[in-house]
Amino acid sequence: MTITTAHLSVSLDGFVAGPNQTMADPIGRGGLALHQWHFDADEPGHEVDARWTAELLRPRGAYVMGRNMFGPVRDAWSTHDGDWRGWWGDEPPYHAPVFVLTHHAREPIEMAGGTTFHFVTEGLERALELARTAGGGDVDIAGGASTVRQALRAGELDEFAFDIVPVLLGSGERLFDEGIRAGFELLEGEHSPWATHVRYRICH
Amino acid sequence: MTITTAHLSVSLDGFVAGPNQTMADPIGRGGLALHQWHFDADEPGHEVDARWTAELLRPRGAYVMGRNMFGPVRDAWSTHDGDWRGWWGDEPPYHAPVFVLTHHAREPIEMAGGTTFHFVTEGLERALELARTAGGGDVDIAGGASTVRQALRAGELDEFAFDIVPVLLGSGERLFDEGIRAGFELLEGEHSPWATHVRYRICH
Repeated sequence: MTITTAHLSVSLDGFVAGPNQTMADPIGRGGLALHQWHFDADEPGHEVDARWTAELLRPRGAYVMGRNMFGPVRDAWSTHDGDWRGWWGDEPPYHAPVFVLTHHAREPIEMAGGTTFHFVTEGLERALELARTAGGGDVDIAGGASTVRQALRAGELDEFAFDIVPVLLGSGERLFDEGIRAGFELLEGEHSPWATHVRYRICH
Repeated sequence: MTITTAHLSVSLDGFVAGPNQTMADPIGRGGLALHQWHFDADEPGHEVDARWTAELLRPRGAYVMGRNMFGPVRDAWSTHDGDWRGWWGDEPPYHAPVFVLTHHAREPIEMAGGTTFHFVTEGLERALELARTAGGGDVDIAGGASTVRQALRAGELDEFAFDIVPVLLGSGERLFDEGIRAGFELLEGEHSPWATHVRYRICH
């Protein structure tokens, strides 16, 4: 059975990005701290983080991504359709089809290493349907937070992994907003000094 | 050296209580779920939760508490000074002096089992000073969240333990509000199906 997952790093006060997100600083002031656990995962003492980096990067059949995760702000890439190819350089870390939600139809972009960005204008459900068919394996909702929340609300998410980073960002983009209710069943959890990692099955 | 601690249970979306807190339901709709891990700590399979219940309840020299934690709403006990003796019955679980922040001077109340409620009108710093002197041991800020935040902002908190409960309450009283920034150093952490427990030293 293929499942649909999400895996996000979040501060102890619930932010997935700091304030003042810009083109030069897409995860906002202080936001880099949320990702240090996997940037440093190769270093000695980071064995726990290395295992969770492997979980984060394990191959999936396909991905779904919101348009703000693909491009910095809605206009920067929708008005430069032919130019913007995502944040990740020539060889993005996905190595699979990535279905990007957008209001602007666009031809697919084939990148090095097996990643192809497809643009879906018919909404999340349609993107998930395409991803489940195209990939033949698990589908990960890569982000951003609003797309993950939309999937959670729609009952489309089977597993959710969090890396809870012990820092308070004070403001920024929240993972959860008001009005989302759900229950979670623990699958596994580990602690490192850099993050508390936990993976849940979602109880619909 | 005596230290000042706080230990709070929080939902995955950052709430310490659900919405619609009332006299009959002081932790709000859904809020009870945040405390089930220690209510059930004696049951088989709850060994991890039992250890963290022991940490939560370990004897302290004294406690500091906000007035909304002592009484249901500000007027219910300030206008009935002689009646309201806290939520905990004749023998509260503190067994030590408890310094309650209030705007209304009131004589101390001696309860069974060693708990005495003292009322402090001169603010948090004064309450902490009294608690550190009176108790001769660690001081715990029992709650509520706003009093803990105030202590964190003032640099008065040395350790902070969280029980992160895998449920989304969707709304209610947040543990952290905007604008608090801090760093944390992991001291210990464990997972149970009912809560992810973690204790940090606070980096001032």
